[in-house]
Amino acid sequence: MRSDEDWYPGHLRELSETECRELLTEHRVGRVAWEAGDGQGPVVLPVNYRFDGEHVIFRTSPHSVLARSFRRGPKSFQIDDHDNYNQSGWSVLVRGDSEVLEWDDLPQDADRPTPWVEGNRNVYVRITPMSISGRRVLPG
Amino acid sequence: MRSDEDWYPGHLRELSETECRELLTEHRVGRVAWEAGDGQGPVVLPVNYRFDGEHVIFRTSPHSVLARSFRRGPKSFQIDDHDNYNQSGWSVLVRGDSEVLEWDDLPQDADRPTPWVEGNRNVYVRITPMSISGRRVLPG
Repeated sequence: MRSDEDWYPGHLRELSETECRELLTEHRVGRVAWEAGDGQGPVVLPVNYRFDGEHVIFRTSPHSVLARSFRRGPKSFQIDDHDNYNQSGWSVLVRGDSEVLEWDDLPQDADRPTPWVEGNRNVYVRITPMSISGRRVLPG
Repeated sequence: MRSDEDWYPGHLRELSETECRELLTEHRVGRVAWEAGDGQGPVVLPVNYRFDGEHVIFRTSPHSVLARSFRRGPKSFQIDDHDNYNQSGWSVLVRGDSEVLEWDDLPQDADRPTPWVEGNRNVYVRITPMSISGRRVLPG
């Protein structure tokens, strides 16, 4: 997005959970967010993911900030997209519980998320949604 | 992003704070994240923003989730972009403290963020960074 482009005022519409699930299924890059407990705001980092219809699954390096500070518990996952030409956009937010997957729980190869970065990325994290919500901004 | 497109493994590089500030200045849409305190993960929502060189400032409706549940304190702000053709991307994370701006603190009109959605958006929120970090994934 360039500095001379602004969103024009539009109309905000809540997305149904079905629409949110469709968007989660279609996309591959999103952001995981969690509270790091250091008195600053949440950590928010992009990841490559898969949504298997029930869970968000992504892979990370055992040396990443995420893996090193990983604790089971509340995490969020967010995707969005915006179109400057049409001045519209949408976002989906998954809030839920997270855990590191055991080997036996892993999806088949084809369904495994592909990491952005080369190296040994063998920590799989699964977020089980407690809530899924979304919104769309339509052109004004 | 389409389902048949994946990021190829690339090289991860940390961005300098100067690079992060440049990206924050150039862009207009990002995501604010905060802990809602309800035992789920952080709330993450897109907003139109301005970075004035020191603070992230965005505007929201007094009726929004953000304004209704607003508390001074830790919040984060994140921007990113990715390019499927080049299989590359970057992200910047600002973690800091937030407050609602008083009228006298508001920037001049031209520097005020333009909201996505029409209506009375007269709550201005300012995030003062405690840390700014970023990363770039270069093609493999």
